[in-house]
Amino acid sequence: MIASTRWLPRWVSHYPKDKLGADLSAGLIVAVLVIPQSLAYALLAGLPPQVGLYVSIFPVIAYALLGSSMVQAVGPVAITALMTYSVLSPVAEPGSPQYLVLAAALSLLSGVMLLVCGLLRFGFLSQLLSRPVIAGFVSGSAVLIVISQLGRLVGVPVAGGDTWQMLSSFFSALPNSHVPTLVVGLGALALLVISKAKLGAWLVHAGMSAVRAVVVIRVMPLVVVLLGTLTVIGLELDLRFGVAVVGRVREGLPGFDFFLPTLTTLNSLLLPAFIMALIGMVQGIAVAQALAIKRRERIDANAELLGLGAANVVAAFHGGMPVGGGLTRSAVNVAAGAQTPLASIVTALTMIAVVLGLAHWLERLPLAVLAASIIMAAWAMVDLKTLRQAWHYDRADATAYIGTALGVLAFGLEVGIVAGIVLSTGTVLYRSSQPHIAVMGRIPGSEHFRNIERYDAETIPGVLFLRVDEKLFFGNLVAVEERLLHELEILQRASEPVTDLVLVMSAVNRMDSTAVDVFTELNEDLQGRGIRMHLAEIKGPVQDRLQRSALWPVLSGEVFLSANEAFERLRPP
Amino acid sequence: MIASTRWLPRWVSHYPKDKLGADLSAGLIVAVLVIPQSLAYALLAGLPPQVGLYVSIFPVIAYALLGSSMVQAVGPVAITALMTYSVLSPVAEPGSPQYLVLAAALSLLSGVMLLVCGLLRFGFLSQLLSRPVIAGFVSGSAVLIVISQLGRLVGVPVAGGDTWQMLSSFFSALPNSHVPTLVVGLGALALLVISKAKLGAWLVHAGMSAVRAVVVIRVMPLVVVLLGTLTVIGLELDLRFGVAVVGRVREGLPGFDFFLPTLTTLNSLLLPAFIMALIGMVQGIAVAQALAIKRRERIDANAELLGLGAANVVAAFHGGMPVGGGLTRSAVNVAAGAQTPLASIVTALTMIAVVLGLAHWLERLPLAVLAASIIMAAWAMVDLKTLRQAWHYDRADATAYIGTALGVLAFGLEVGIVAGIVLSTGTVLYRSSQPHIAVMGRIPGSEHFRNIERYDAETIPGVLFLRVDEKLFFGNLVAVEERLLHELEILQRASEPVTDLVLVMSAVNRMDSTAVDVFTELNEDLQGRGIRMHLAEIKGPVQDRLQRSALWPVLSGEVFLSANEAFERLRPP
Repeated sequence: MIASTRWLPRWVSHYPKDKLGADLSAGLIVAVLVIPQSLAYALLAGLPPQVGLYVSIFPVIAYALLGSSMVQAVGPVAITALMTYSVLSPVAEPGSPQYLVLAAALSLLSGVMLLVCGLLRFGFLSQLLSRPVIAGFVSGSAVLIVISQLGRLVGVPVAGGDTWQMLSSFFSALPNSHVPTLVVGLGALALLVISKAKLGAWLVHAGMSAVRAVVVIRVMPLVVVLLGTLTVIGLELDLRFGVAVVGRVREGLPGFDFFLPTLTTLNSLLLPAFIMALIGMVQGIAVAQALAIKRRERIDANAELLGLGAANVVAAFHGGMPVGGGLTRSAVNVAAGAQTPLASIVTALTMIAVVLGLAHWLERLPLAVLAASIIMAAWAMVDLKTLRQAWHYDRADATAYIGTALGVLAFGLEVGIVAGIVLSTGTVLYRSSQPHIAVMGRIPGSEHFRNIERYDAETIPGVLFLRVDEKLFFGNLVAVEERLLHELEILQRASEPVTDLVLVMSAVNRMDSTAVDVFTELNEDLQGRGIRMHLAEIKGPVQDRLQRSALWPVLSGEVFLSANEAFERLRPP
Repeated sequence: MIASTRWLPRWVSHYPKDKLGADLSAGLIVAVLVIPQSLAYALLAGLPPQVGLYVSIFPVIAYALLGSSMVQAVGPVAITALMTYSVLSPVAEPGSPQYLVLAAALSLLSGVMLLVCGLLRFGFLSQLLSRPVIAGFVSGSAVLIVISQLGRLVGVPVAGGDTWQMLSSFFSALPNSHVPTLVVGLGALALLVISKAKLGAWLVHAGMSAVRAVVVIRVMPLVVVLLGTLTVIGLELDLRFGVAVVGRVREGLPGFDFFLPTLTTLNSLLLPAFIMALIGMVQGIAVAQALAIKRRERIDANAELLGLGAANVVAAFHGGMPVGGGLTRSAVNVAAGAQTPLASIVTALTMIAVVLGLAHWLERLPLAVLAASIIMAAWAMVDLKTLRQAWHYDRADATAYIGTALGVLAFGLEVGIVAGIVLSTGTVLYRSSQPHIAVMGRIPGSEHFRNIERYDAETIPGVLFLRVDEKLFFGNLVAVEERLLHELEILQRASEPVTDLVLVMSAVNRMDSTAVDVFTELNEDLQGRGIRMHLAEIKGPVQDRLQRSALWPVLSGEVFLSANEAFERLRPP
């Protein structure tokens, strides 16, 4: 019995039967609600809209079986779609057979990378990016997505490529906007904006319960898509006025396509796939984590990687579009009452029915309406709250946010993410290179030592107690040495000749080889000037290493267990 | 009076007259002793040998006036020469007019970069490289230098390019060695090796004073060069047996060449010049610092940059070869008794006489002898002591050394230095991501808190005291959170339900925005499980920031000044 279920996830083998109803209804609701989003993101990725539906089926099941989150919903997501477009549109015509093969290859590659990272337990890699960097990346990408949809919204062709090309071709084409498209597109956008901003308050004001109001708001994108399609059909906008619609949709489910990308193709996609895997990992884990905390559950980063990886590998062969863990999609799932991944499996099965039964309904869906829904979704991703908080809390984090967002907008997704990594790790290193250093004194009548600038502490003439609040490594030794010599000079001028320096090492968690070298030289230098160098409060692991170093045997002073011990020994009798 | 001297360096305006004799004699000695080295390094750089003498004149004076070291001697140095060769030999034929222009442009560019860094007070940039990385780079380069000279030593042509090409062409040509050249080259090498390894002991044994013996050893390279030249002249080795010699040397001093490199040239040299400036900066400052410590003087990193920059700019227009602060050259200067930069100026003036009067003597100097002296100098640069020390003290530093050295040998100087930077900064970040975390207890009868694993400390049932010994930043939050939840779980199993978590923040020097976010979520998470989160011993600057953060108002527990205060408050009455 145990043997037969050990490979099944816990939520399957120990399924809580009381949650079946909630999961079934949530799964059905999500399937219907995410239809417009799935179509829209496929379009954003430069792929036929139905692809968004296809990859909402088997990849979702794969994630449900391998991932660790109870409520994360996997599927086509905005960032991954945008990355697909930005990577592939320069090398193949969007929508062309070659493009479809490349998109599938990209999905396969990033899926394999995620799987490998999961198997190697590399979940900690998702820490490579700080939250302001992620927020900056997502916000910059969101603006890029909005810009990419402007042309479709008003019915003018817009060149792909970078931000500047898109903007300039949009503005030069704007005077030739296609009026019927523009009316449909802006109308849909207006409806969506109003339903998001005002509808809830109106409904509650009209007597509806808040919970129901939320459901109505969630249904609005679907309503707008239906309204748009019905308008097109009713007024024959596509046939008589040339409003662009989705067009012929292949009927039924696609087979599992077994394609073999060439080595050259795979090679050229390695770097983009890596960046996509990295972003997918970071975002997917962040979404799963945020949801888990709200539900007082825990996720396992490595299981998440396996789930996301498997979903992408499956997507490569069935649909052919990279997928990820989506915040909107998961929020819909939670709001609809999902309790376990069974809800996602129900969603997937329902989606099969949708694809088989309703696909031809999509043929007259106006693209301008999809563009409006993409713009709304993207706009909601612009995260200015994180920027504002970072600005108040830590300017360096705000700078990393802005640098990443501007990098994405001005130079593309890859440059943006690299800029973010360099800025955030650079900040960590730079700060370690500017350590806080305090001259210490003893609080009279106690054994406590404090910064003499902040406290009225007693000192010994000719003896300097110095505490460095940072590990000692190659990057901060010049700063430490300069400050140390500066303090010695001040003391020299103020009191009798300096005879002793006590380095209080309580906050030094590490000393690298360069630090040992520099302190050995400093020890020699000070000895020549008649100053002994003592060490106090060395941490265990640091002392273990120091005893093997070249400094230990030549240290001119003593090693004290505590600053107080040094104080007692060095003060004049 | 003050106004007229304020722009002069202090050693000029306040020249200590008692040191005049020492400086004059040292300057003379150095000029003579560094002749073979200057010729050899010019040759190593792919330039005509006399160029090494030219750049030992005005660049030396420029550094003497702007630098801050009293005894550093500037001139052609091995690493810079090797970099010049490795950058320029793929784009122009060594020794060709085009090559000379490029070498001058490289010198100009890196000089300007150094000057700009000095003016912007970027001296701290020299901390970008840890000592093991520098030692690895220098050692790898030294081996590369030795390999590059093997062909000349035995009289076979060796292809330029990477290590593997040089080695394979050397070994394939080895059977065709030119016997007379081989005899001269290996003879010179043997003489140099013996004089370095044994001569000192022999001389002292024979009754010479140790100081004199050192002088004799220093003179040996010059003696070997003279012997080699005289042998060639006496036996007509060049004319009758075809032993390669320096050949025609342009008579007299070169004029100041004013050349204008094209923008394309400058552009293509930007990156190599930057790396050269970086290495020159790091090495020059390291040498100056090492000498200053021995002499109980201080150097100013920014003045060093100005001095090195000016020297290179001058070198671009007079000689056309990048220069640097050389350890051997400076050691000779110190050994000869130099006290101030006046010695270097005397060296420069003497060098003019050498160039004017002795240049034609150089024409029959055998190249194999110069190769032998380059090999000896390079071999002395291989720094295995640093590797050995790093290996014992800190394996990560040893890895950075080995990675840098292998990078230089296998893929060239640029890859090596980049590998070194990535390895050393990566190590710092990786270690910060694996912080030391301790569960704390109170030493009975005291106010001291210690790791309960190391000490027999008292604890309160249901209360966890945890101390993280590292700044909290995006890179280590997952590790911190995992450990924290793990400890809570252990406690939960062992005692009554956990009610309180006290984070002892005494070693937390910083918290970034991501850390605030994660702890805010954790606070909420724990609150949902009935666990209050308290903070204790927050450092002043950290608390100042935290009070502006989103965590402060929602913190479920209290903020305590000390761990002991928390202990007293939380223990059962």
